[in-house]
Amino acid sequence: MLTQPIKKFIEIFSALPGIGVRQATRLAFKLIGEGRNRIEEITQAVSDLRYLKTCSQCFFVHQNKDNICDICRDPKRNKNLIMIVEKETNLISIEKTKKFNGLYLILGDLSKSGDLDSGKKLRLNHLKHLIKKEGQVEEIILAFNPTTYGDLNASIVVKELQGFAKKISRLGRGIPTGGEIEFADPETLSQSLERRS
Amino acid sequence: MLTQPIKKFIEIFSALPGIGVRQATRLAFKLIGEGRNRIEEITQAVSDLRYLKTCSQCFFVHQNKDNICDICRDPKRNKNLIMIVEKETNLISIEKTKKFNGLYLILGDLSKSGDLDSGKKLRLNHLKHLIKKEGQVEEIILAFNPTTYGDLNASIVVKELQGFAKKISRLGRGIPTGGEIEFADPETLSQSLERRS
Repeated sequence: MLTQPIKKFIEIFSALPGIGVRQATRLAFKLIGEGRNRIEEITQAVSDLRYLKTCSQCFFVHQNKDNICDICRDPKRNKNLIMIVEKETNLISIEKTKKFNGLYLILGDLSKSGDLDSGKKLRLNHLKHLIKKEGQVEEIILAFNPTTYGDLNASIVVKELQGFAKKISRLGRGIPTGGEIEFADPETLSQSLERRS
Repeated sequence: MLTQPIKKFIEIFSALPGIGVRQATRLAFKLIGEGRNRIEEITQAVSDLRYLKTCSQCFFVHQNKDNICDICRDPKRNKNLIMIVEKETNLISIEKTKKFNGLYLILGDLSKSGDLDSGKKLRLNHLKHLIKKEGQVEEIILAFNPTTYGDLNASIVVKELQGFAKKISRLGRGIPTGGEIEFADPETLSQSLERRS
């Protein structure tokens, strides 16, 4: 009864995180009801994501002509201080505190097994390579969620980075244990940054 | 810090029903992370919704060359029995019961004030016009949610359609009062269809 374009839309959108079949179905009819111009606008918004590039140093998204993002190219940022975050939204939360002026590495979604997949190993090796050029950095901050999985992954990453920094720290437990970085307010995050241990 | 395409994506997607700013942000990075091919696939899925048409009789979506959907053009369906539903997903739920062989009218989202806006009046007038050609239909079933707003809108629609059907019924209260048609299983819906009053 549903025509092919709707079925396809539901199939694709219900596979995205946080959207189920029911919501995808509603979305489809909502968009159809809003008409061609609106559908074209949304099409464009999705399509434009194609032009985004990933920074070759920290792996954050950017639109610069070369392969370096605005944060990594900023001469005012402290290259001796590197924060490793799980995902882009965590970097954004930290930037909002305006209390961190080092550089980042986005590692990618942490696994629950604690194993580092090839993608994460590649990124860590890339960081090691960058650090080796300079010798050793002052500090690496692991900004993983203070959860079991975060702790597990942190202990693995600490081993991997042994010798690459004078100090390897984690964000202070100003963030409620069991919570997520994404949901912390800037003040709590600032506290956790100042009290890192 | 977020580039324009991401901001635009978040702005558009967070305005869609059931998607907030946080989920839209996650979606953006999820899609970027999945790469160009996947973004193109999703772009296509959204874009293809443009080609869907709305049936000129019942206002359900279709892809036929003329303006009539498969249900309205089916000679086996009983033209003397018309069900008025609020939205497309309700029509789909009713079709799944396989217990209804009449035609439909999709009225559009019911207002909480109980007023019929110009769009809904247009659709009702369109139905009246179709019925007048034949004189009077046997029965019109109002398949609105059994809620306060559903009852309110039903009483208004009943007045509007006075004289256009020998009988105007509502779905039997097999559906739990306060619940929604979308969440009813086919069996409950079948019961409510058989026991309509």
